[in-house]
This record gives sequence, structure tokens and C-alpha cells, in this order.
Amino acid sequence: MSHPRSPVDAAQAYLTSFAPAVDAYLATLFPEGAPMPARLREAMNYSLLAGGKRLRPVLCLATARTFGVAEDVVMPAAAAIELVHCYSLIHDDLPCMDDDDLRRGRPTNHKVFGEATALLAGDALLTYAFEQLAQPLPVPPDRQMAMVRTLAHAAGCYGMVGGQMADLEAERRDGTPEDLAYIHTHKTAKLIQAAVLIGSWFADVAESVRDALARFGLHAGWAFQIMDDWLDVAGDAAEMGKARGSDERLQKLTYPRLFGLAETRRQAEAHLAEAVGALAAAGIDSPLLVGLAQRMVERQR
Amino acid sequence: MSHPRSPVDAAQAYLTSFAPAVDAYLATLFPEGAPMPARLREAMNYSLLAGGKRLRPVLCLATARTFGVAEDVVMPAAAAIELVHCYSLIHDDLPCMDDDDLRRGRPTNHKVFGEATALLAGDALLTYAFEQLAQPLPVPPDRQMAMVRTLAHAAGCYGMVGGQMADLEAERRDGTPEDLAYIHTHKTAKLIQAAVLIGSWFADVAESVRDALARFGLHAGWAFQIMDDWLDVAGDAAEMGKARGSDERLQKLTYPRLFGLAETRRQAEAHLAEAVGALAAAGIDSPLLVGLAQRMVERQR
Repeated sequence: MSHPRSPVDAAQAYLTSFAPAVDAYLATLFPEGAPMPARLREAMNYSLLAGGKRLRPVLCLATARTFGVAEDVVMPAAAAIELVHCYSLIHDDLPCMDDDDLRRGRPTNHKVFGEATALLAGDALLTYAFEQLAQPLPVPPDRQMAMVRTLAHAAGCYGMVGGQMADLEAERRDGTPEDLAYIHTHKTAKLIQAAVLIGSWFADVAESVRDALARFGLHAGWAFQIMDDWLDVAGDAAEMGKARGSDERLQKLTYPRLFGLAETRRQAEAHLAEAVGALAAAGIDSPLLVGLAQRMVERQR
Repeated sequence: MSHPRSPVDAAQAYLTSFAPAVDAYLATLFPEGAPMPARLREAMNYSLLAGGKRLRPVLCLATARTFGVAEDVVMPAAAAIELVHCYSLIHDDLPCMDDDDLRRGRPTNHKVFGEATALLAGDALLTYAFEQLAQPLPVPPDRQMAMVRTLAHAAGCYGMVGGQMADLEAERRDGTPEDLAYIHTHKTAKLIQAAVLIGSWFADVAESVRDALARFGLHAGWAFQIMDDWLDVAGDAAEMGKARGSDERLQKLTYPRLFGLAETRRQAEAHLAEAVGALAAAGIDSPLLVGLAQRMVERQR
């Protein structure tokens, strides 16, 4: 007989099992001897295998698990989402973008391999995400095609790239709460939402359930990015593996800048409540997803 | 009664009809008011709608036409290939790559929009290619999934990006004919081959026919890139819309550098003959494809 656990404990146990499984899977993607220039492979693996929370792939696995689908079936798709996330970090760190020297406690990709190789490593990881997601999977092909569309839409001009563009344009300017909402939902929340939705496409769920999962993913991702802003001001640099205050240096439009720290935290909690409420309203009983969303707000890095 | 025409005439007539159709289709993809930052949309359209030969999408349409599939059915997939080509030009022109100021007679994307926007416009075009290719199409989903795999494989670390990496690494170094073959097949021929293969996935063709089309696309694309090298030395700058001699400036590893101009031309012809021979050996009677391959060699720009 199993003891009842809090959602946060359930999430922690799941992360402890499956974040390493994601790491292990990613390490198999571009093995030594893969037929590509060695330096490209090194640059891709340098960033891909640098650790990280593996939050997006774990959310994808957890969503499928909520509907009874085993993690090993979902892993190739979960990895595709992490490939997109990883590419976005490499390009984001480039001198023409945020010009960051450190990422996860190590020199950024272009600091080690140079700008041209970093650019190409990012391009290659993004492209491989779709090769990865389009591989034969034990799922009906129409649902798999929906996964490809979901990932591309969330990552591109109507999603993450659109958010990054707006983020850049908002530097050194006054912005409205609406500008900030666009930036946060697009640069961060859409890909997190896609992780949840792609997990859901492995199961045959009703439209209303998928809509609820979309709301869950959007608000959980939104809360996550708001906490990212918060941690950049109030977090512990050693925990985060990068310098604090980069938002202020770049004069980014952030929640603390517009609302102050206390209200920032309150808004993150409000989006967390929206996320959890979306599941409850649709009758989705998943302590695991609830706990993962809670951990996205109550985190140190 | 129709008069017999040479393959080159057939290809020219087809290009005259369908290159403008590709242009018109591409112009509908990111219309005014599309929900993304205006500057991102402008930067994407600036490069996407700058003309160009539209060779890759036309090859895709022509391959499907060879097996009786109508152009309007294939157009969304053909456009996806041009999106990938267009992104690759934007990233290739960046200062950290080839640092080019002119493309198709106009300032390059980063010269107009700045490096950050050009980087993001390229990322967005690449990502949208997969959204485009994964849209509902009147083709069995398993064959459509093969198209996604084909495009991603040809564009990424095992294809175009791998070739670009090797191309950069070969600058200012001695290289062997084998190095050069890797560069040309990967940075150029694989995407042209993918255009042919994606066209073929619209039809239910035998494996042996698809293999022949793969050989056709590879050698036609190889011949095309060899002629690109030739034109960079011996072409007419005004025709090409960019300065000659950029390969020499960047000390690229090229056919003229390794073999001289006359032998370069001879090798292009040899690959053209291989391409045409692959069709003949498989009994594929397509003056259109033969003529398109011939035009890829006998061109002024």
C-alpha cells in the first residue's frame, strides 16, 4: 500500500528518476564517430550535455504518464523539446543577442568554440529536433504530425522566436504590462506548453482535456519565467551557475522592473493557481503535474 | 498536336510558369498583421521575397509532376524547402560566417536589420519550414512524415549544416578532393536532393525509382555547386547580383582552386551526366527533370 505524498514530493521523486534518464538519452544522440565534422559534434554535445533541469522533457514525460503512457515510448519526443531549448540558449548567448559569457556555470558555447561554430551548432540542434520528432514512433501518424506542428509553432515566429524578438526590442524602452505578457508567454511559456501538449498527443484524450492541458502549460510556463525574472534580482548566483543582474545590465523589460519584487512573486503564484485550476476544472487528477508546476515556482535556480 | 521540345526548353517553360507561382505562394506566408513582431516579419519577408531562382521548390514540383501530381498539391512542401534555403543564406551572410554585404543585388539581411534580427529571422524561417511541411496535406501521413525526416536530415548536422561547418574549417587550409566532395555534397547537394525526394513522396513510387531520384538529385546538386564555384571566378558580376571572387577572398576550398577552371567545368558536366543517367537507368522518362538539371549547369547566375 502506497502512502499519500504531497504533489511536490511526487514531482521530486519523478524528477530524480527521469531527469537522469533524459540526460542518458541525450548522450546517445550524437555519439563519437557520427558522420559529421567533429568540431560541430563537440559543440552540439557541449551545450546539450551540460546538465540543466530537463524541465521541459520531464513535463512531456509526466503528461504522457498521467494518461498511462510509458516514459520510454515518449522519450524521443521529449528529447526533441530539449534540443529546441538547448539551441535557443546557444543563440541567445551570442554576442549579437545577450552576449553572455557563462551558462550553467561554464563558458558559453561561442566562448569555447567561436561564434560561427556556435551559430551552426544551434542551427543543427534545432533542425535535429524535427528529425528526432519525425522518427517512427508507436503513435498514430496524424497525432505525430500534430506533435511536429505543435513544436514548430511554439518554437518559431509565432512562439519563442517572436518572444525573443520582442524581448530584444523592449530593451532600454518603456514597456506596458501587455508587452511583458507577450514576451513572457512567447519566449518561454509556449515551449513549456508544447512539452505538455506533445506529451498529451501520445494519448487519445478529449479535446476539452487537451485544452485544459494547454492552459496548464501556458500558465505554468508563465509562472516559471516570472520566477526567472525574480531569481535574476533576488536569487543566489552560485546556485544559478550564472551571474545575477543580467536583466538589469541589458535593461530588459521584466516583472520586477514593472511591478517590484513582492508583486512579481504574487503574480507567479497567481499563474501557478491558474495552471492548477485548469487541471482541476477538467477533472485531471495529476499530483505529478501539480507538483512539477509548484516546483517551477518554488525553485532556487 | 504538340511539337517535340528539347529538355532545356521544357525546363525553361516550366520555370517560367512555376517560379512566379512559388513567389506568389511565399508572399502569402507572412502577411501584414500576422501575430508576430513587425520587425521580425519584415526581416523574414525581406529575404524570402527577394527573388532568387526558386530552383529547389521548382525541382520539387517538377518531380511530383513527373509522377502525375499537380503543382498546387505540392506547393506547401516546395515552399518549405525554399524556407530552409532562405534561412541558410541569411545565417551564411552573417559577419561571423562569410560576412557578405550583398545578396541578389541588395544589402544582406543583417546589413538592413542588424545581426540579432537577422539571426532570429533565420531561426524563424527554418522553424516555420517544419510547421509548413507538417500542415495537413492530401498525402498518406506515413509518407508526409518521411518528408519531414528527409528535410530535417538534409538540412542539419548530417547535411547542410555539416557541410557549412566543413566549408568554414577548410578556409585557409589545404584540402583534399575528398574534403571538397564532402563540402559540396553536404552544403548544397543534400538540400537539392531533398527537394527531389520530397516531390517523390507525393507519389507512390517503387523504392528503386526513389533511389534513382536520390542519385539524380545528389549529382544534379553537386554539379550545381561546382558551377557556383566556376561562376565565382568566371561569371558576370552584374548577372549574379553579387561580387565575384568571394571564394578567393575567404580562401575557400573550391573546384577551381584544386583543379583549375577547365577541369571544374568538366567535372560539372560529368555529374550532370551521372544525374541524367540515373533517371535513364531506372526508366524515368522526364525531359523536364533532365532539362532542369541541364539548366543548373548551363547558367549565368
